[in-house]
Amino acid sequence: MKYCSHCGAPVALKIPAGDTLPRHVCGACDTIHYQNPKIVAGCIPEWEGRILLCRRAIEPRTGFWTFPAGFMELGESAEQAAVRETFEEARAVVQLESLYAVLTLTHVNQVYLVYRGRLRAHEFGCGSESLEVQLFGTEAIPWNELAFPVIRDVLVRYAAERRAGTFSVHSGSISPRSS
Amino acid sequence: MKYCSHCGAPVALKIPAGDTLPRHVCGACDTIHYQNPKIVAGCIPEWEGRILLCRRAIEPRTGFWTFPAGFMELGESAEQAAVRETFEEARAVVQLESLYAVLTLTHVNQVYLVYRGRLRAHEFGCGSESLEVQLFGTEAIPWNELAFPVIRDVLVRYAAERRAGTFSVHSGSISPRSS
Repeated sequence: MKYCSHCGAPVALKIPAGDTLPRHVCGACDTIHYQNPKIVAGCIPEWEGRILLCRRAIEPRTGFWTFPAGFMELGESAEQAAVRETFEEARAVVQLESLYAVLTLTHVNQVYLVYRGRLRAHEFGCGSESLEVQLFGTEAIPWNELAFPVIRDVLVRYAAERRAGTFSVHSGSISPRSS
Repeated sequence: MKYCSHCGAPVALKIPAGDTLPRHVCGACDTIHYQNPKIVAGCIPEWEGRILLCRRAIEPRTGFWTFPAGFMELGESAEQAAVRETFEEARAVVQLESLYAVLTLTHVNQVYLVYRGRLRAHEFGCGSESLEVQLFGTEAIPWNELAFPVIRDVLVRYAAERRAGTFSVHSGSISPRSS
């Protein structure tokens, strides 16, 4: 950030009065521009014991698999974002069942909010960000072709809990080298 | 947002290619400026069956009570943010016990991530954003002097679950008129 989005004047990094961290502060209008982590809302869509995964058509990690997930927008709830992303990426309509994971990725300043969902019908397809969309039993998840460590972390837990027959909510952090 | 924070040129609202929503796009360098909801991380700090609340010294809602909570910063986890806010506002050191609530406030584009925590010692005090910090039994929570509907929603659930002796994770949305 180099310029004030409010007045166009240059900003400088400094610690505002009463604050403890450096912020981008406008030299002309004194606006403080805070920067904060972003929320990625995702869904593990289930259909008769299998889950719907998407093979990414976009960078980063084109060609690798993920569950539907994307940046939460202004004006929607986290649940609405998870449902929307599932439709956009997998052309599937889901009913959410429960919150499943809240995971911070500090290295990219993202917090994943992942829900378990149920497909309302055996209907899905490729959105513009997907090369392929497919149902997988937990034993058939393409473990070596998953897009990100957070996707692997969530699906490892999911597969174990699906086998055990009980789901809990997971909270924590994922490092770039988690695998 | 009127100007590009990258190059200082004016921005215009338009729907970028491949997108579905209007974004602020720079007319000079084509940077797309996304805006996303912010995360508020909070903690319900417990000590021997009572919880620690803060009376706000800052706007909005100066003089009303809340549990420690504030905007998550870059580079920290949601759990670290909850612990940090508890120390900043209530000068209390907590060990987090579990995730307790994930609540979207669509009208202000915030998502609250609230954790249950345990005070490490019977030590607390006023940070610069608090007028008063005090332990309350659930029967003594100042219900008519709480700062925001989300604070009330979380504490109503907490008080009922504390009486029942079992806690679950809550997920959903809070409207401005929730009470």
